[in-house]
Amino acid sequence: MKLATYRDGSRDGQLVLVTNRLDRAVFVADIAQTLQAALDRWNAVEQDLRFRAAQLEAGQLAGAFPFQASMCMAPLPRAYQWADGSAYLNHVELVRKARGAAMPPELYSDPLMYQGGSDTLLGPNDDMVFADAAWGIDFEAELALVLGDLPAGATAEEGSRGARLAVLVNDVSLRELIPAELAKGFGFVQSKPASAFSPVAVTLDEFGPAWDGERLHLDLAVWRNGEQVGRLRSGDDMHFSFADLACHLCRTRSACAGTLLGAGTVSNRRAGAGYGCIAEKRMLEILEGGKAVTPYLQHGETVRIEAFDSSGQTVFGSIQQRVVVQPR
Amino acid sequence: MKLATYRDGSRDGQLVLVTNRLDRAVFVADIAQTLQAALDRWNAVEQDLRFRAAQLEAGQLAGAFPFQASMCMAPLPRAYQWADGSAYLNHVELVRKARGAAMPPELYSDPLMYQGGSDTLLGPNDDMVFADAAWGIDFEAELALVLGDLPAGATAEEGSRGARLAVLVNDVSLRELIPAELAKGFGFVQSKPASAFSPVAVTLDEFGPAWDGERLHLDLAVWRNGEQVGRLRSGDDMHFSFADLACHLCRTRSACAGTLLGAGTVSNRRAGAGYGCIAEKRMLEILEGGKAVTPYLQHGETVRIEAFDSSGQTVFGSIQQRVVVQPR
Repeated sequence: MKLATYRDGSRDGQLVLVTNRLDRAVFVADIAQTLQAALDRWNAVEQDLRFRAAQLEAGQLAGAFPFQASMCMAPLPRAYQWADGSAYLNHVELVRKARGAAMPPELYSDPLMYQGGSDTLLGPNDDMVFADAAWGIDFEAELALVLGDLPAGATAEEGSRGARLAVLVNDVSLRELIPAELAKGFGFVQSKPASAFSPVAVTLDEFGPAWDGERLHLDLAVWRNGEQVGRLRSGDDMHFSFADLACHLCRTRSACAGTLLGAGTVSNRRAGAGYGCIAEKRMLEILEGGKAVTPYLQHGETVRIEAFDSSGQTVFGSIQQRVVVQPR
Repeated sequence: MKLATYRDGSRDGQLVLVTNRLDRAVFVADIAQTLQAALDRWNAVEQDLRFRAAQLEAGQLAGAFPFQASMCMAPLPRAYQWADGSAYLNHVELVRKARGAAMPPELYSDPLMYQGGSDTLLGPNDDMVFADAAWGIDFEAELALVLGDLPAGATAEEGSRGARLAVLVNDVSLRELIPAELAKGFGFVQSKPASAFSPVAVTLDEFGPAWDGERLHLDLAVWRNGEQVGRLRSGDDMHFSFADLACHLCRTRSACAGTLLGAGTVSNRRAGAGYGCIAEKRMLEILEGGKAVTPYLQHGETVRIEAFDSSGQTVFGSIQQRVVVQPR
């Protein structure tokens, strides 16, 4: 089952069901008006949504209309929680190596995770608007799960079972603001502005064997200005599973339905995989030639992020964004 | 105008208006069902709410009933953002001094602020439930503002003008988990579980001169097991104003209506002020005698936090919580 949130002028938009091939959609306000409302009472609405989705797939709904990704807000245009882990340690290792820092052994058993801002989440085609390109505007291609309610102390297995949906994320980062914020120890406030999300969110059963209860095995492609820079595999090199990350998040506290749990920039060790964020390319340049050459994003540049299943079909639709540098 | 959220079995509760003396309340579902709904369209509902509040105050509403703080959830039982600054530098200086670390000069111009979990916020009488007292359960008495929509790049003055309400907070902290999380640089995930909030939220006009557009000047009292341990003044020693903190939060991104902006544990330099969190008492003990003597909270202990205006009247009602240590 694929779900999206259509713009309707409101803050939370309108929930729609979308066909597997992303060609048709239908409003389901009689079941749930918004995705958060559906997640709030998932057990009560899931069956109705699935029945309606099957009708949509079979072409039986008179109210169906052509699906347009450009009409989409983020599946959750604002969320009660956005917790983002760093599951791909190749990324963390590169960051450390490029600044000459050792990799502390704890990082192999205790995941990095930050609490991100979730009050405004961007739709798949929303511009990335910033006052100053000197902040070092970067993208990060990643996957996230949308969780149901999890109790404090949830095990990894409970975390896995409690996951409802998967989404694709561009975790927008302001690289030049990160070092000073991280040095303060309190995490990211200014250096991780609003992230952008794929047109649709997908229930985990849709993935078949590509969701093994811990990891999502998808091909993740990343383009900068139309040139492909990343050919990543989201199931490879993922040191911490989504189940591990959910368990980490819930060690001392519960997580409310609608929590977005990210796994961090996908980063593969494989030669030719390319990169899911510019920072990684720059770190490789520092390690190879002593200095970063590839610039961060400037006004007018575009980013496209898309995931494909084993048959080459798009899973979530694509995130396609443009950078706008515009002093306030 | 004072507002609260009554339990009704739903996740977000029911908005009520409460009299200035916290003795009577009335449901206002015909105006807004929840506090978030009111904040989402504040300009459209404010006048109706104020008119109704005046009627309630005048005893003209047949539907009014005695207000019970025990019926209250947090004013926002879940929020889209909880950003908590550290405005009282005495606290930061003590933390640093106790561990022999210098105070970096940047901290006097660049506030510490973290993005906190906001998916579950506790009501004023909810237990603090944890699996392990060894995590170092502590309270933090602080004030927070509830903001309206602020644009990216908002100035301090815009931040001040965009604030809607003030609330009292117990920012529950797990002290023994903090050092390891801060060392990772990514902020607090496990060491800052759900915070608790006062029964009522109060519009800023209610404070008269006690809100100067930058700071709230209130007396803040803190009790542990019925013994008063803090007699703080929230307007004193507040290095960064709420306006500064709003400006910091919005440097690179907007803030959505309903954002909770905290100013951190209130901490006064004045002799006899006592403390707003146990950690501070322990740091003073380390500085004076070489080791911390006062233990963190154990099962069955109680905390009470309450703010008073210049006439000695309670402002927000009190936060009164009990610690429950209960392995899962």
